[in-house]
Amino acid sequence: MSAYWCELAWLGGEHAEGGVVIEVEGDVIVGIEPGAPAPPRGAVRLDGLTLPGFANAHSHAFHRALRGHTQRGGGSFWTWRERMYELAAALDPDSYLRLARATFAEMALAGITAVGEFHYLHHGPGGEPYADPNEIGRALIAAAGEAGIRITLLDACYLHGGIGEPPNRVQRRFSDGDAPAWADRVNGLESNPGVRIGAAIHSVRAVAPEAAATVAEWAAERGCPLHAHVSEQPAENDACRDAFGVTPTRLLGDAGALGPRFTAVHAIHLDSDDVGLLGSGRCCCCLCPTTERDLADGVGPARELLEAGASLALGSDSHAVIDLLEEARAVELDERLASCERGHHGAAALLRAASVTGHACLGWRDAGRLEAGAPADLVSIRLDGVRTAGVTPETALEFVVFAAGASDVDRVICGGREIVRDGVHLGVEVARELRESIAAVRG
Amino acid sequence: MSAYWCELAWLGGEHAEGGVVIEVEGDVIVGIEPGAPAPPRGAVRLDGLTLPGFANAHSHAFHRALRGHTQRGGGSFWTWRERMYELAAALDPDSYLRLARATFAEMALAGITAVGEFHYLHHGPGGEPYADPNEIGRALIAAAGEAGIRITLLDACYLHGGIGEPPNRVQRRFSDGDAPAWADRVNGLESNPGVRIGAAIHSVRAVAPEAAATVAEWAAERGCPLHAHVSEQPAENDACRDAFGVTPTRLLGDAGALGPRFTAVHAIHLDSDDVGLLGSGRCCCCLCPTTERDLADGVGPARELLEAGASLALGSDSHAVIDLLEEARAVELDERLASCERGHHGAAALLRAASVTGHACLGWRDAGRLEAGAPADLVSIRLDGVRTAGVTPETALEFVVFAAGASDVDRVICGGREIVRDGVHLGVEVARELRESIAAVRG
Repeated sequence: MSAYWCELAWLGGEHAEGGVVIEVEGDVIVGIEPGAPAPPRGAVRLDGLTLPGFANAHSHAFHRALRGHTQRGGGSFWTWRERMYELAAALDPDSYLRLARATFAEMALAGITAVGEFHYLHHGPGGEPYADPNEIGRALIAAAGEAGIRITLLDACYLHGGIGEPPNRVQRRFSDGDAPAWADRVNGLESNPGVRIGAAIHSVRAVAPEAAATVAEWAAERGCPLHAHVSEQPAENDACRDAFGVTPTRLLGDAGALGPRFTAVHAIHLDSDDVGLLGSGRCCCCLCPTTERDLADGVGPARELLEAGASLALGSDSHAVIDLLEEARAVELDERLASCERGHHGAAALLRAASVTGHACLGWRDAGRLEAGAPADLVSIRLDGVRTAGVTPETALEFVVFAAGASDVDRVICGGREIVRDGVHLGVEVARELRESIAAVRG
Repeated sequence: MSAYWCELAWLGGEHAEGGVVIEVEGDVIVGIEPGAPAPPRGAVRLDGLTLPGFANAHSHAFHRALRGHTQRGGGSFWTWRERMYELAAALDPDSYLRLARATFAEMALAGITAVGEFHYLHHGPGGEPYADPNEIGRALIAAAGEAGIRITLLDACYLHGGIGEPPNRVQRRFSDGDAPAWADRVNGLESNPGVRIGAAIHSVRAVAPEAAATVAEWAAERGCPLHAHVSEQPAENDACRDAFGVTPTRLLGDAGALGPRFTAVHAIHLDSDDVGLLGSGRCCCCLCPTTERDLADGVGPARELLEAGASLALGSDSHAVIDLLEEARAVELDERLASCERGHHGAAALLRAASVTGHACLGWRDAGRLEAGAPADLVSIRLDGVRTAGVTPETALEFVVFAAGASDVDRVICGGREIVRDGVHLGVEVARELRESIAAVRG
């Protein structure tokens, strides 16, 4: 058994608690008690504010190699996508393993202990399956393990280049041909203690209604997470209405996808019926604000979704930056810009999105909380730096959510194992591995 | 004479240059030459990307003590303002000097070498002038000097609590009674090599049209900068139209304020006539995006203002965070959210707002550029960290603007004097001084 003593820790309420002792056996928290003025003998001291590890609920690991390379000139989501396809075309299982390991390690440095990897690059050039048809999926699972974090591999069904269109040259690497073939392939993947397998419907652009129903049924039979990109761009809504006469949310509802295991990623351009469907279905909505800013997606109705009954999670998606605290505050700050009112989401609510509801939507229903029985996933945020100077115990949550960032992350413990100390990853030389793996795929 | 060798430096164009030698005599750049593959003998090596020092064109230093303390509950700009007044009421010249020195030193850590301090807390409790009626202004000037950065003290005329209303108890500390008395007081302040004196009309809420004309005339006689808060909130526009039948921009134009020495701070809720007036007047517009997000102000028409002929500057204003790179990218990213298009402001244009046009609007017309004759204000940004991993010489500007932050600032040189090395301020223990000075004023 080991023990930690936290100067301040967030146990899920509206304020941080002082002097919190966390007892860990193996990879699980077995006891937690606030109010200890000093560390018990033998306890590891965690200064600053200790939070449950963050869940990055929406990631495309290879997009990390696009950072900084898509900002010149004008364009739109759709021209950005062309650059992303060029990169996808250059990847193979080895190069993707190295890039993903470095990217997941960058996540660890930001306090992320679980990633939802929305994975659609399944096959070799031209769509030829690898000898192991899940070779890239397994590479992603290995990458997360080597970076020391949990992964939910959200294996995405991707069949069409657009509604009714065949996949183009690059998209053929994404496609299994049809949904039963997708299911056959994904049946070959196994969960293990640090790994969950989930399903994804890439989008209504890439998966027709009947195929979406097949994927939803597969996920329902296994009780596993089901994710889909939903209404990120108005053009998706327009195409869906033209082809099927309904919104993407309604289409997915009719396909049996919605419900408490379902996560709508982005969920921006929604009408009030969509909000009602996602809310009454107790769905999760994964917001990715730094990507949504980058790709000019717009600001979604996060407050309305919560009020309707949905929960919120956060994702760094395209990894324009990897900083869950920036994602968290952006949910509130972008809604302030859109509404001209303050105070839609308090710091504790934003931390819940980054932790407990984020983990839940990835199938880790006991994680993302500091309580007995939860995995021992801890992240401590320094409060002695300049960004947080002026903090008090009463304002620690607000300082961390609204003013701190990934560079303030001090220690990270995932499943009882320390993976980051003093802001340095203990297993991966992150900047060098990012540099080398990005250079390898950008040529 | 001293020399620096920059691995990469931005000389104002669309890309960074490699191997740039910068020669400095005293506080001025006397020579600059790209293309040296290695440092000349005796040159100081600056790794990463070297930029001209940033200008923080809009600051209220004491607002730094509000960080993290105004995020609970709902509310609006106007309820936030009540919290700000409570803080203003607690300040005296000594406590403000200490708070401002620490705040300006936090700016130095973020690469800021010049601050435009929009100063309205002039008098003692109840409005009683200090023995030296410019005692707080001089404290702010001293604070900047001790932090090692330049200051333009934008001394603000503030006469009314709202249009036609007397100042309230706290606002009496801001008021000189009338505009001639404001001018008499400000005539007592002197420029010196690190200090410029400018004028400010607080807003059309606080300064009636005739008084605004007096301030504008004072600034015109001296050829000095003139700033005003303009259309930060729709309620200001409504009140101005109700009282005077015109927009705030038109009112200021009629008062003779607009022109190349004028800076409209925020400039958010503008109509097309306002945009035309600010553009044809070759005015500067100072955007403060992290504050505008925080205060739910909305997104201004930055692209339209540029196209109409205005220039842009950046300010951290209320210091919710102090990070000019975050301000710079927010101009583009928030406009993407508002327009659903990408590519309004490229990285080089955003850096110009942070440097050359920012300095110009503060009266430092030769600063903010790496060229012979300019002040030797340099900031080097590390490119070997995780946030910028993947950078190439061709994408250095994009990586720094869209993915780096204040924590990546490595060295800062202001007027030939090194003030920050390895991310540490050489003269001020910043986090401790912030903690102590904030605790002193928050009680």
